[in-house]
Amino acid sequence: MILFHLKTGKKYYIKDPKDFSTHLGVIKKEYLENAKPGEIIKSHLGEEFVVLKDTFIDLLEFLRRGPQTTHPKDFGLLVSLTGLSSGWKVVEGGAGSGILTSFLANTVKPDGRVYSYEKRGEFYEIAKENLEKTGLIDYVDLKLKDITIGIDEKNVDIVVLDVGDPWRVLEHAYNSLRVGGYLAVFLPNITSVLKLLELNRKFYLLGIYESIVREWIYRKDVLRPRHMQLSHTEFLILFRKIK
Amino acid sequence: MILFHLKTGKKYYIKDPKDFSTHLGVIKKEYLENAKPGEIIKSHLGEEFVVLKDTFIDLLEFLRRGPQTTHPKDFGLLVSLTGLSSGWKVVEGGAGSGILTSFLANTVKPDGRVYSYEKRGEFYEIAKENLEKTGLIDYVDLKLKDITIGIDEKNVDIVVLDVGDPWRVLEHAYNSLRVGGYLAVFLPNITSVLKLLELNRKFYLLGIYESIVREWIYRKDVLRPRHMQLSHTEFLILFRKIK
Amino acid sequence: MILFHLKTGKKYYIKDPKDFSTHLGVIKKEYLENAKPGEIIKSHLGEEFVVLKDTFIDLLEFLRRGPQTTHPKDFGLLVSLTGLSSGWKVVEGGAGSGILTSFLANTVKPDGRVYSYEKRGEFYEIAKENLEKTGLIDYVDLKLKDITIGIDEKNVDIVVLDVGDPWRVLEHAYNSLRVGGYLAVFLPNITSVLKLLELNRKFYLLGIYESIVREWIYRKDVLRPRHMQLSHTEFLILFRKIK
Amino acid sequence: MILFHLKTGKKYYIKDPKDFSTHLGVIKKEYLENAKPGEIIKSHLGEEFVVLKDTFIDLLEFLRRGPQTTHPKDFGLLVSLTGLSSGWKVVEGGAGSGILTSFLANTVKPDGRVYSYEKRGEFYEIAKENLEKTGLIDYVDLKLKDITIGIDEKNVDIVVLDVGDPWRVLEHAYNSLRVGGYLAVFLPNITSVLKLLELNRKFYLLGIYESIVREWIYRKDVLRPRHMQLSHTEFLILFRKIK
Repeated sequence: MILFHLKTGKKYYIKDPKDFSTHLGVIKKEYLENAKPGEIIKSHLGEEFVVLKDTFIDLLEFLRRGPQTTHPKDFGLLVSLTGLSSGWKVVEGGAGSGILTSFLANTVKPDGRVYSYEKRGEFYEIAKENLEKTGLIDYVDLKLKDITIGIDEKNVDIVVLDVGDPWRVLEHAYNSLRVGGYLAVFLPNITSVLKLLELNRKFYLLGIYESIVREWIYRKDVLRPRHMQLSHTEFLILFRKIK
Repeated sequence: MILFHLKTGKKYYIKDPKDFSTHLGVIKKEYLENAKPGEIIKSHLGEEFVVLKDTFIDLLEFLRRGPQTTHPKDFGLLVSLTGLSSGWKVVEGGAGSGILTSFLANTVKPDGRVYSYEKRGEFYEIAKENLEKTGLIDYVDLKLKDITIGIDEKNVDIVVLDVGDPWRVLEHAYNSLRVGGYLAVFLPNITSVLKLLELNRKFYLLGIYESIVREWIYRKDVLRPRHMQLSHTEFLILFRKIK
Repeated sequence: MILFHLKTGKKYYIKDPKDFSTHLGVIKKEYLENAKPGEIIKSHLGEEFVVLKDTFIDLLEFLRRGPQTTHPKDFGLLVSLTGLSSGWKVVEGGAGSGILTSFLANTVKPDGRVYSYEKRGEFYEIAKENLEKTGLIDYVDLKLKDITIGIDEKNVDIVVLDVGDPWRVLEHAYNSLRVGGYLAVFLPNITSVLKLLELNRKFYLLGIYESIVREWIYRKDVLRPRHMQLSHTEFLILFRKIK
Repeated sequence: MILFHLKTGKKYYIKDPKDFSTHLGVIKKEYLENAKPGEIIKSHLGEEFVVLKDTFIDLLEFLRRGPQTTHPKDFGLLVSLTGLSSGWKVVEGGAGSGILTSFLANTVKPDGRVYSYEKRGEFYEIAKENLEKTGLIDYVDLKLKDITIGIDEKNVDIVVLDVGDPWRVLEHAYNSLRVGGYLAVFLPNITSVLKLLELNRKFYLLGIYESIVREWIYRKDVLRPRHMQLSHTEFLILFRKIK
């Protein structure tokens, strides 16, 4: 359950209904147990909170983060370029903290499936915990395996890579994909992008993209672009298996 | 069925299998009837074409376009900000040529539904034709109605507006949405954005965004950003119904 | 005099030659007195510093800043659009801390002149101090006056405004400029830009521009765009007096 | 002399006063001979033209262009980063069609000088013609020489390179520059940028920059960013000779 503080817009995540303390006062267990989406609950200090259904994006804020995470905007670009949607069979290399895995699972559910590889035990555990929190674990096969060694699945619709050495997965991805399937690679440095492009032999290159999202600020009837913005996260290199 | 020309990357859309003429030669009907995804078909001039399964994004290229169309990148941004996915109940205002409708339906299928309003008969017909071509009509209620007059649906997850006067839909959208639901408005001009922000009374403003996608060109081992790019399409203004 | 620390790239500004203490050790007065550009001076800890001629851009780092300052990139855009150069007669409204004044004076020297208006005594003093530090005061008439009340100069080549209410200067600027002269206005908000455009009656609008400078980071053979960047400072609205 | 058509904003360049035919009518020689800046001249069809003093930026439109030309915005960025101004001693490699040479000369005049190298006779002639047209030839030594073979000048303030193989000029530039002087290199491809960075041994890297100028359109009280924009021209790599 998500509580939304009416005055500030701050959100609170409630896992189990119990007396819940915030610096805006205590919210009683009994209120939380009976709360339905849309209802307003008050703390003992009279602060008002709206109950929200815990949708994926709301939960996302409360997941554990690893050192580097594919940004939602970059996932959005991937969706717009491939039409990724319910029913797709996805292989992901580098689950990391499971944020991108969550987006993928949320998009291909209920009929699709994400097969996600993570070689580091520590991140495997974080990803598992995060996927359980969002309930998306039901659509994911999370594997403690190194994707550069091989991919088990065949006839896959898309392989998504967010690893440091994606060129070592080119051959495995090619063998795993159906004809017409996509290989999507996220890379932070242009030097790595160049290496990938130079080492690619079999895939058809659809394009190399950057997504830059510009946010505007509206306050007291004044509108302007935000001064400092996230100008760069990752490049998206999109390939297709044609034959 | 989509044919992909191996040398040039040009795609051809085959509706009914019959002898198909291209400037790269004729492809025989019998080849097309028996073709399976991944197989290579030759024209009588020996040009090679790969058979692709006709996925949504491939079909998109062959849809009829109206004068202005929400760009896929802007739809991708919407997905990344809201988590729009299978099962959502969507109201769309301004079907236009049905391109955005197609993206919405492709994303909420199989369990969700898009209720799309279009007041102009001419665009209603184009949208209908396009949705039939992609097979996504099964997930859409296309209505020949003016959304500024009212919205029939209740308890909706998101209202998406791509009309010239979205401020006239604010009240209807509010009444139609569930608590926690989103109102997403696409607008090409900052002057219209300002008018919308000034007239909004009830919605909680999540943000005002622009998505700028930068494409890079890789040719003969040389990599550079494309010189001329689409720098602006539409602003996305995202609201939420909190109470 | 500017000292450049060889290991870190950090710069030090020396006004008067005297024993100079840094956390990298003390540099003796006698070394500083005799130093010529290009020579290397050592601190008593053996750290090496190169003597640089104190050019305008080097000094810029050591000027006092006010709350908001026109960014050098925006000045660069102005130069590229107008050809501003030696010999121009410039009126500036809103000296602020004198940073933009310095850029203007540095560009029009030795034959041109900047007439700069500042109504707030506090900023007038900061601007004066900064212009004296760079030696550019010789090319500037700094006036403790409100430019919205009037402009004394006639037959001016360009009027540059960096004030909150530039629409109140439109008439004065028009009367002050020669035919063919420019009015350049810097504004942080699009709402102010709109107001200016709506209130302009006499000037020919050349364009409305934003300059976005993207910086790339090169470290250990890896190249990528900087993650967070200054995405917005000010809009530049450029007008011309045609008749 | 420049004529500015009042209705359309179209400009006309008049070299010698003689009867001048436009599709807006003929303008009589006698009118042109006596015209002073600011006066209005009518064609025999009654169309009105304003006489403008022929400043550098106005003349720029009428110069001959080569295949590729450094964009004014990139020159503006260079000015903002270095403080390039009157009195500087500049070496330019690759005069090309002389557009960048013109900007450099316009900025360093009257006390500075540009030493410009061009190895191709054809471009040497175009650059010469353009510099004569703007009158800036007085501040330029245009040389029919290959800058990769050597630079004659010593104690130079800045070396500006717009050639395909700038890494072959690194050594010459270093020897030619004063301590504290700048090396500015314009390159269109990131692959070339990487090569330059890898081959640089002696220069201190100040930064790698892209200047992106976004233009807004204001028409009938509606304001929006231009849809298609020049997103990329050249990267600017800026070095400094420290010792």
